[in-house]
Amino acid sequence: MWNTSYVLVSRPLGLATEANFRREELPLAEPGEGEVLVRIDYISLDPAMRGWMNAGTTYLPGVELGVVMRAFAAGEVISSRHQNWKVGQTVTGLLGVQTYAMVKGELLTAVDTNLAPLSWYLGILGMPGLTAYFGLLDKGNPKPGETVLVSGAAGMVGSLVGQIARIKGCRVAGIAGGEDKCAFLKNELNWDEVINYKSISDLPAALKERLPNGIDIFFDNVGGNILDAALTNLARGCRIIICGAISQYNQLTTQGPSNYMKIVTARGTLTGVIVLDYFDKAAEALNHLSRWLSEGKIIYNEHIIPGIDQFPFALNLLFSGGNTGKLLLQNKFE
Amino acid sequence: MWNTSYVLVSRPLGLATEANFRREELPLAEPGEGEVLVRIDYISLDPAMRGWMNAGTTYLPGVELGVVMRAFAAGEVISSRHQNWKVGQTVTGLLGVQTYAMVKGELLTAVDTNLAPLSWYLGILGMPGLTAYFGLLDKGNPKPGETVLVSGAAGMVGSLVGQIARIKGCRVAGIAGGEDKCAFLKNELNWDEVINYKSISDLPAALKERLPNGIDIFFDNVGGNILDAALTNLARGCRIIICGAISQYNQLTTQGPSNYMKIVTARGTLTGVIVLDYFDKAAEALNHLSRWLSEGKIIYNEHIIPGIDQFPFALNLLFSGGNTGKLLLQNKFE
Repeated sequence: MWNTSYVLVSRPLGLATEANFRREELPLAEPGEGEVLVRIDYISLDPAMRGWMNAGTTYLPGVELGVVMRAFAAGEVISSRHQNWKVGQTVTGLLGVQTYAMVKGELLTAVDTNLAPLSWYLGILGMPGLTAYFGLLDKGNPKPGETVLVSGAAGMVGSLVGQIARIKGCRVAGIAGGEDKCAFLKNELNWDEVINYKSISDLPAALKERLPNGIDIFFDNVGGNILDAALTNLARGCRIIICGAISQYNQLTTQGPSNYMKIVTARGTLTGVIVLDYFDKAAEALNHLSRWLSEGKIIYNEHIIPGIDQFPFALNLLFSGGNTGKLLLQNKFE
Repeated sequence: MWNTSYVLVSRPLGLATEANFRREELPLAEPGEGEVLVRIDYISLDPAMRGWMNAGTTYLPGVELGVVMRAFAAGEVISSRHQNWKVGQTVTGLLGVQTYAMVKGELLTAVDTNLAPLSWYLGILGMPGLTAYFGLLDKGNPKPGETVLVSGAAGMVGSLVGQIARIKGCRVAGIAGGEDKCAFLKNELNWDEVINYKSISDLPAALKERLPNGIDIFFDNVGGNILDAALTNLARGCRIIICGAISQYNQLTTQGPSNYMKIVTARGTLTGVIVLDYFDKAAEALNHLSRWLSEGKIIYNEHIIPGIDQFPFALNLLFSGGNTGKLLLQNKFE
């Protein structure tokens, strides 16, 4: 049996390409004491992965050159020499872009596929779900009737944030790129306002017209011009929650928000959400998210790309806006 | 008797010039019912005035063309038809860039020149003093031992913020432009670290070296590259308090902070201070500031330019870094 992995060999300037990785095939070893061998069924593709390819530390250190690319992934234990794990258990963890992972047992999380499909634990019941839940509710503290604007609104985190905001009685607006995405948000998710930034020349004017009371909470996944546009239409006491800046991750220099003084004038605050800070409260979020899913209050979509050889093409769908919902690579085993 | 005033006639692109104003001499009228005539002794020059010259509203509407330029000022009542005011009382208010002001009595604030010189009520005992006090203490919530960095550190607000932070037991660092300013902060005010940004090529590296524990509170009066540099060295849980962006007020486009994602990584918050929000708590601040002055815990410097004809040259000293301490115009009366 062989493991196929993608090893980072150079740091991208702009979009990652095949040349930044070496595809490696190595024979599988047997677990050492305390180790577990996992067959990886799904690899999560997340915007943060582009940042991990850079040198230096953000909230996690950059991936070192010569090492398998970091990714959240989900699979099944196929061999174990760790007392907590036995063959057949389903797990998630930072297992990397590969078909099998050999990891210390302590680094795995058990997930129950009787409650939800395995892949969901990489999305709505995983990091992105916790990010949306705590980013909106803990950082944003939304109140009924407030206006919540979400950028990257058709993405995994964005679409969930807006749905939770609707559950909390907020007026929900989204910015997304493309008619299909906007139709989904408007018609399937029933959001109050949806703006296709690709078809609009003056986003600040559109926001002013569509959200005449201003923005109480802006949940930003995009950065750049979209962040700057949102800052022109803030309500008094607004909360700006920075989750990501997907428009900037492939730029050589980051565009800062030139309208940041509007935050001062609006008596607003800008803060961010880092999901690592919420692991000890994860159960609360997962209980709520599971219930909302079962009650049909949340619609959850996955976008699954088959075959590890689609990496990094599949990753770049995140940056071209080619995905709707949670993007995953699915490994194929004969 | 004649009033000399500076009327805004065009909006500056970049620095304000004489051409943006019309110097007007008009005979003084008698107060109408409810009005008060004030002889203006001191006119406050504040960075915010540059923003007021632009069209559009920030925290106050822009000054309309054809109207006397807005400014805080202090003087003496010389004629009154308002029951609250009588001749000889000393007052402050938004009296404008002129030698006399005719205003509704409700818009004046009484000040006691037995307690402090009249001009101080435009500085340490006025808006800038309240800005520094509440910006640092209410927005920043400094704790003993925390590192507080101040930009525009030799200016009115900056130098006061650092001194209050020292009183509160913080480690205080300042960024200023010029050796004289830095010597004052280091030797007269005994700040822990002072950086002359004009003599340093790599400000982020200097901040990292001088403030190895990172910045807990950054009080920013400057914006631009200095804000971006501070963001590279944040401590976990930092508070960034935006008071002003003096480096940007004369630029045609504002440079946003390209390192804003560092706020997210540091679990920090960015917020601002608007002094108008604290008028109902002003007495608390003025009591503390007066006591600290009398105890010698705060050193307060004024930079007084004689003669209204020095406007707008004097205003531009704020932007060239030509002032140390509170900048004022003093009217001359024969």
